Amino acid sequence: MSLITVGTMAFDAIETPFDKVDRIVGGSATYVAYAASHFVKPVQQISIIGNDFPQSELDELISRGVQIEGVEMVPDKKSFFWSGRYHLDMNARDTLVTDLNVLENFNPIVPDSYQGADFLMLGNLMPSIQMQVIKQLKQRPKFVAIDTMNFWMDSAMDDLIAVLQKIDALIINDSEARQLSGEVSLVKGAHKILTMGPKFLIIKKGEHGALLFHKNQVFFAPALPLEDVFDPTGAGDTFAGGFMGYLAKTKDISFENMKTAIIVGSALASFCVEKFGPDRLKEISKKDIDIRISEFVQLVNFDIDLL
Amino acid sequence: MSLITVGTMAFDAIETPFDKVDRIVGGSATYVAYAASHFVKPVQQISIIGNDFPQSELDELISRGVQIEGVEMVPDKKSFFWSGRYHLDMNARDTLVTDLNVLENFNPIVPDSYQGADFLMLGNLMPSIQMQVIKQLKQRPKFVAIDTMNFWMDSAMDDLIAVLQKIDALIINDSEARQLSGEVSLVKGAHKILTMGPKFLIIKKGEHGALLFHKNQVFFAPALPLEDVFDPTGAGDTFAGGFMGYLAKTKDISFENMKTAIIVGSALASFCVEKFGPDRLKEISKKDIDIRISEFVQLVNFDIDLL
Repeated sequence: MSLITVGTMAFDAIETPFDKVDRIVGGSATYVAYAASHFVKPVQQISIIGNDFPQSELDELISRGVQIEGVEMVPDKKSFFWSGRYHLDMNARDTLVTDLNVLENFNPIVPDSYQGADFLMLGNLMPSIQMQVIKQLKQRPKFVAIDTMNFWMDSAMDDLIAVLQKIDALIINDSEARQLSGEVSLVKGAHKILTMGPKFLIIKKGEHGALLFHKNQVFFAPALPLEDVFDPTGAGDTFAGGFMGYLAKTKDISFENMKTAIIVGSALASFCVEKFGPDRLKEISKKDIDIRISEFVQLVNFDIDLL
Repeated sequence: MSLITVGTMAFDAIETPFDKVDRIVGGSATYVAYAASHFVKPVQQISIIGNDFPQSELDELISRGVQIEGVEMVPDKKSFFWSGRYHLDMNARDTLVTDLNVLENFNPIVPDSYQGADFLMLGNLMPSIQMQVIKQLKQRPKFVAIDTMNFWMDSAMDDLIAVLQKIDALIINDSEARQLSGEVSLVKGAHKILTMGPKFLIIKKGEHGALLFHKNQVFFAPALPLEDVFDPTGAGDTFAGGFMGYLAKTKDISFENMKTAIIVGSALASFCVEKFGPDRLKEISKKDIDIRISEFVQLVNFDIDLL
């Protein structure tokens, strides 16, 4: 059961209140692939990189069952570069630099070998590019999820609305949900967004967990309370990767199974923030993930028989 | 199994983005009593009121099993008055007016008839007043919980530290936990606070739920995602009242039972915010509470067998 992931593969420079790094591998599709590859093979990557993207990183991904036929390498350009600085409470950050580089001409082509995939994760990209990928798929995947951001709501709302009508699940954060719906109440906003196309809406609230809405049902997954959040970069993409990877592994897109998938995504995200970049996602074993998931069970488990 | 509650009984004027009221009954002990009385009788109230506090409200409390022998009525003064205005997102508010009135001379006396109570909830008051109540109890209650606030950390930290050494549970919000511990990380902060006296720490995060810390254990209770939060005033006190009322009812202060008590407190708080003041707490039945608690179970329940 394969999963196509579309997004950036990039370099990041990150400054947190505790440390900084000048140039590490990042990008939404990188995080999605590392997270999802713990659950499903192949992960079929679609992205664009410059001549500076390390071969060792590509080799690492390949060794984990990530296919890179859909990753275009532009020989005379550099990879996308993002630089940001986190505030003291790590819930907010300022973007310092955005060098689009190869991303200016990103024109994703779905390789023939990827056709027939049952799961598709479209990372945060221009909505018209997301649509372009959807239209190239000869057979509609069983389940299509997208990420997006406020910037596209401001600059390409019509295109975004069109994409929303083609997908199954939208994965956004709370401020994006408020902007997209025009509602302060997340519950009201969620019900409005569910009329715009997606059957499932996941609202990520960072350290405050995530909400899943479907019809009149709602599920809440906490974030694990951590001693230290070292670097939140990529946590949202890692969440999406764990979520989609687990769905693809289990081939079950019921609301019940999606709840479990959200816990799995949250567990993966809790590892991601422990180190700079995707490094922690490369180190962890199935046992580490199982232990972490059991911590989530402990965290929210209560016995109500006494009432 | 009786519960002593100590705190304010007051008038509030409240402005939210949606509506306003000029003068309704409020006060921490009022909310605690209405919430706790759904679970335990008697609730033994200790407070101070002026000549303007409505007899009908006292009668209503008495009819619910709240004893008011410890409520001092000052004939020539007015009741404590607070006025505040909520921001658009309802997570923040500005205090507009604080008229201490009778509260300036609050010198709580524990009536003989209250001696022997097994549970004590000390609302947010000057720490020296909280200590004064603790010292009057001839037999130490089985379980003592307090609320406090940043103001006392700034102005009476030594007294607060002394109180912390006498109690079992501290119930505060996230910004108070950060200030008290001097840690940005709530987990680090919690472990620090647990060395200061309390064996249990509850950190309220408003619409983001609540955390319970005890030794190396942690439990997270979500807040119910609501369509509308009409008025958050008193939600924290209602939470404390439901929590303590349930503990007193079940006479069980194990970590396991405390988790259930936190869900019960959260359920009561979710009713409180549906109307101005404590009105909603007067309307709800045991059945309403049971249904609401089952919504919490639905909200966080997931099946992890598939992994």
